[in-house]
Amino acid sequence: MEIQIMKKVLAANDAWAQENRRFLLEKSICMFNVIGSPGAGKTTFLERTIDELKKDFRVGVIEGDIATTTDAKRIQKKGVPVYQINTGTACHLDANLINAALLELTKKNQFDIIFVENIGNLVCPAEFDIGEIAKIAILSVTEGDDKVQKYPLLFTVAHTVIINKMDLLKYTNFKVKSVLKDCKKFSSRSVVFQLDSLSGTGFSKWVEFIKKFKK
Amino acid sequence: MEIQIMKKVLAANDAWAQENRRFLLEKSICMFNVIGSPGAGKTTFLERTIDELKKDFRVGVIEGDIATTTDAKRIQKKGVPVYQINTGTACHLDANLINAALLELTKKNQFDIIFVENIGNLVCPAEFDIGEIAKIAILSVTEGDDKVQKYPLLFTVAHTVIINKMDLLKYTNFKVKSVLKDCKKFSSRSVVFQLDSLSGTGFSKWVEFIKKFKK
Repeated sequence: MEIQIMKKVLAANDAWAQENRRFLLEKSICMFNVIGSPGAGKTTFLERTIDELKKDFRVGVIEGDIATTTDAKRIQKKGVPVYQINTGTACHLDANLINAALLELTKKNQFDIIFVENIGNLVCPAEFDIGEIAKIAILSVTEGDDKVQKYPLLFTVAHTVIINKMDLLKYTNFKVKSVLKDCKKFSSRSVVFQLDSLSGTGFSKWVEFIKKFKK
Repeated sequence: MEIQIMKKVLAANDAWAQENRRFLLEKSICMFNVIGSPGAGKTTFLERTIDELKKDFRVGVIEGDIATTTDAKRIQKKGVPVYQINTGTACHLDANLINAALLELTKKNQFDIIFVENIGNLVCPAEFDIGEIAKIAILSVTEGDDKVQKYPLLFTVAHTVIINKMDLLKYTNFKVKSVLKDCKKFSSRSVVFQLDSLSGTGFSKWVEFIKKFKK
């Protein structure tokens, strides 16, 4: 019974995801779905990315959190439109929630790029298509180098992998080579960036990449 | 409709949790449910805890992972019985899964303490009672000091909070005082330990506590 219901939930979600894709294409907006553990550095990554992009692109953010508006407030300080979704107990964002957020955000603003910061969770967000052009997985070196193997779905469906908090690498036993190998194993197409969102180490390659993605 | 189904799922889970509690009481086993983000250091925390306890207590571990048996193999090296559950896609352990694991583990062994390492996730594991005597929430300083506010349910239901990776504190902007305040806010009863599972800093207080808990 549970499997049947899950299938129905995912089918309903896919219909909304399809509608979001149509809507985004019509408006020529690239939407990225940023997924990582709690504390992987998703918001800090977005703050710095916005700083780098906002001169040339109209950027917007959809913030997903169980509770609080902390992240939306941080993004707001960067001077870009942001929409906060509080899911209460739901551990992922679905395409229906994103549809409502997109309609609201685009009422008054036009965008080139919208980033969705999903709920901090490596499991369920990977299962739900929200109509994004690409999923960006963020993994920080302080989480350990076994995470790609232990959460294979995300690293199979992610187009881009960010290895974050590289400045802390020397204080950990995280093996970058082993993670790169695992990333390749689960998705031969994925692009991996090694950077530190707080200090900006290695950030320029990522910025160059995302700029080309949109152009 | 979804809410009704969730209620049924939780009711079925609670019945199994109750059965697990009865079973554990009968055998005089303390079972702890260890919950934290991917990479919070749950396995390292358990490895060191086992080292400290195994002389005086018969310890067992139930390992929950989406995929891989990496953690079970690490625990096995400590010379204690371990049972690995791979959930495939499910983002939490439920009481039914734990019941099967308990029956299997206790076939050949007797225990004083069983630790359950839940799926790396701050959301859903907090919703499911598995029949544990207490939930132990692990939060590492590299995840940022806003996590208690952002994942309030776990820190409301957790009996014990471990602030882990304290040796890395000086390289982060994590404010311990602010987290202690948040922990108190969501649960006035929770006991908080600040430690580093890798080096052992601050570990003795936790060991003293857990030993008293069982005696």
